[in-house]
Amino acid sequence: MDYILENLLSEPLTPWLSGSGPEGEIVLSSRIRLARNLKSQPFPGRASAAKLGEIMAELKAVPAELMADDGHEYVFVELEKLSPLARYVLVEKHIVSPNHVADPKNRALVVRDDASVSIMVNEEDHLRLQCLEAGLNLTEAFAKATTVDDIIEATHTLAFMEHIGYLTACPTNIGTGLRASVMVHLPALALTKQMGTMVAIATRLGLTVRGLYGEGTEATGNIFQISNQVTLGRSEPDIINNLNSVVKQIVDKERMARSLLINETPDVLADRVWRAYGVLRYAQSLSASESLALLSEVRLGIDLGVIDEALPALFNQLLVTTRPNFLQNLSGEVALNQAESNKLRAKLVRLSLQGN
Amino acid sequence: MDYILENLLSEPLTPWLSGSGPEGEIVLSSRIRLARNLKSQPFPGRASAAKLGEIMAELKAVPAELMADDGHEYVFVELEKLSPLARYVLVEKHIVSPNHVADPKNRALVVRDDASVSIMVNEEDHLRLQCLEAGLNLTEAFAKATTVDDIIEATHTLAFMEHIGYLTACPTNIGTGLRASVMVHLPALALTKQMGTMVAIATRLGLTVRGLYGEGTEATGNIFQISNQVTLGRSEPDIINNLNSVVKQIVDKERMARSLLINETPDVLADRVWRAYGVLRYAQSLSASESLALLSEVRLGIDLGVIDEALPALFNQLLVTTRPNFLQNLSGEVALNQAESNKLRAKLVRLSLQGN
Repeated sequence: MDYILENLLSEPLTPWLSGSGPEGEIVLSSRIRLARNLKSQPFPGRASAAKLGEIMAELKAVPAELMADDGHEYVFVELEKLSPLARYVLVEKHIVSPNHVADPKNRALVVRDDASVSIMVNEEDHLRLQCLEAGLNLTEAFAKATTVDDIIEATHTLAFMEHIGYLTACPTNIGTGLRASVMVHLPALALTKQMGTMVAIATRLGLTVRGLYGEGTEATGNIFQISNQVTLGRSEPDIINNLNSVVKQIVDKERMARSLLINETPDVLADRVWRAYGVLRYAQSLSASESLALLSEVRLGIDLGVIDEALPALFNQLLVTTRPNFLQNLSGEVALNQAESNKLRAKLVRLSLQGN
Repeated sequence: MDYILENLLSEPLTPWLSGSGPEGEIVLSSRIRLARNLKSQPFPGRASAAKLGEIMAELKAVPAELMADDGHEYVFVELEKLSPLARYVLVEKHIVSPNHVADPKNRALVVRDDASVSIMVNEEDHLRLQCLEAGLNLTEAFAKATTVDDIIEATHTLAFMEHIGYLTACPTNIGTGLRASVMVHLPALALTKQMGTMVAIATRLGLTVRGLYGEGTEATGNIFQISNQVTLGRSEPDIINNLNSVVKQIVDKERMARSLLINETPDVLADRVWRAYGVLRYAQSLSASESLALLSEVRLGIDLGVIDEALPALFNQLLVTTRPNFLQNLSGEVALNQAESNKLRAKLVRLSLQGN
C-alpha cells in the first residue's frame, strides 16, 4: 500500500483542494479534528520511548479496523521511516503538523487513500484524528470523524471522564477534544482593509483566525484558518454550528466586498488581477510568498469572472505545488537553494498556466 | 496629397522606427537638422504676422522644387488648418517641435511622403530642415539634408556671411546651423547605473544628452537623444564625425553592459524582462511612462535573445502608439480622460503582443 503514500507525496490535488464544495469559491476546506488518548498510557509528552512504542503497536491495528467499515484503503506510516523531505511535504499538505514531525521517532500517521481521513499518532495526544471536506461542510466532516472515532472507541479504551469528557494532554482541548476549522480565501476583505475588524469580531465570538500554515504564520495569499477556541462545556453540534454561522457571515461580507470591487472599481480590479496573471504566466523566479499573493489575486479574478483563462482547481493545486518542500520533492535528490527553488516554482506555474 | 498627412497621423511606423539600420538594436534613429533663414526677412521672433505670411508664401514653392529632384511626394501643411490634436500627434512623432505648434498661425510644415524629410517653416528660424534615418546613419542623413539644402539655396537667397556661416535666430545655432542627433536605447547602462558617467563624458566632449521628448523631459524608457552643442567654428563633417565616434563608444559600453547582464545574472535578467512582458501582455491600464519603461525592458529582452515572442519593430512601433495624443487621435472625436487613455493604451499593447 506504498502507493497511497507515494500519491500523497507527489500528487498536488487532495480532494479537499478540488475547488468544489459548498461556498467553494470562498471556503477552500472544512476540517474536524478530534484529540483522543488511550486510557492505559501516559500522554506522549510524559511517555518514555518504550511507552510510545507500545502506543504505536496498539494503534497499528487501526487501518484494518477502518478499512473493514468503509472499504477505503488505509496505511500506517512510521514517520521515522520517511525522509525528512517527505515529512515536510506532509506538513505542507496539512496532513501532519510541524510538531508531529519535529521528533519523528515513535510517531506515526494513519491516512486514508484519498487523504480525507488521517490520524496523527503520538503527536501531543495519542490520537489526533482529522477529517477534511471541500468547501464549507463541517457537518459532513464531523459525521465522518464521529464514525472513525466510534470505530476506534469500540476496540480501544479511551481516556474519558463523566462530566468532563475526553482527557487531553493540553487543557485547552479537554472535553470534546474537538477543533473545527475552515480555510477561507478572503482577498476582497483584505483588499478593502476589513480583515482587522473581522478578526476582532471572530475572536469575541470564541473563534481564532490564523494564516494558512497555522499559528504564527502570516496570512499570505489572503488565506485564513478560522477555528473554535473552546472545547469544554459546549456540545459538539454547538461548537460546529457556532463556527458554521460565523463563517457564513464572513463569507457574506467577503461576497459584499467582492461586489463592491467589481461594481465600483471594475477597471482597477481587472487591471490588478490580470497583472498578477501576467506576472505568474511569465516570471522566471517566484518566491513562495509572492506566488501565494499573486495566486490569491488570480483566484479572485477567476471567481469574479474577470479571468477566464484558468480554473479554480488550478489555483488550489498551485497553492500546494508552489510550497518549498513539495517543490524540493518534485526535483528529486539534489537540494535546491533559494534561487533554484524560486526558478523551479516559476517554471511550474508557467507550465500550469500555459497548459490551460 | 492629403493622404500623406493622413498616413503621418494614423500610421505608427515611420521608416526610421523600423528597427533596422546600422547598430539598430541600440541606435533607433539618426537625425540631421539644418537651421536656415531667408536673407530678405526678419527672424520669425521679430517678424509681424504679415511678414510671417510673406515667408510662408515664398516657401510654398519648396515641395514642388524637392519633388522635381527626388520624385517623392511632398506636402505643404499650414499648422493652423490642423486640429490641435493632429498637431500634437506630429510632435509625438518628432516631425515638429512643441514650440512650433505653440502658436500655429503662420507656421507650416513641409513633409515628404515617407516622413524622412521635413521642414518646419517659421519655427525659431524660417526653415528648420530635418532628415531622419533608421539606426546609426548620420552620414546618409547629412547627405540627404545637403541635397535638400542645395535645392532650396538654388532658388531662395539665404542669410549667410563669409567667415561666420549661416545666420540663425539663436546664436547657439550660428555657423553651420547644424544639429546632428541620434536616439539611443540604453537600458543596460541605465540598469547598471552608468548613465551618470556617460552623460558627464558626452558633455565634456561637446555633446548634449536628453530624454526622448527633448529638453527637460526625463529619459523614460531609457531612450536618450545625443546631439552636438557647438555649431560655430567646426565643419559639418567634424561635427558629425565627433558625434558618430562618441555614439559608437556609447554603443560599445551598452553592449558590454548587456553582455555583463546576460552572462553574470542571466536569471535575474530573464525574470525582469519576462515580467515586463507579462504585465504588458495582460495589464488593463497602462500609463504612458510605465508602458515606455516596460517596453524598454522587453526590447532589451528581445535584443538579448531572451524573449522570442515579439519583434524589435513592434517595440519601436509601440513607442509611438502608446503616446497620449496618438492614442487620442486613434480613438476619434471624444476626448479621453486619463483613465480611458490608460485603458486604451493597455488594450492596444495587448492586441499588439497577442497578434505575435
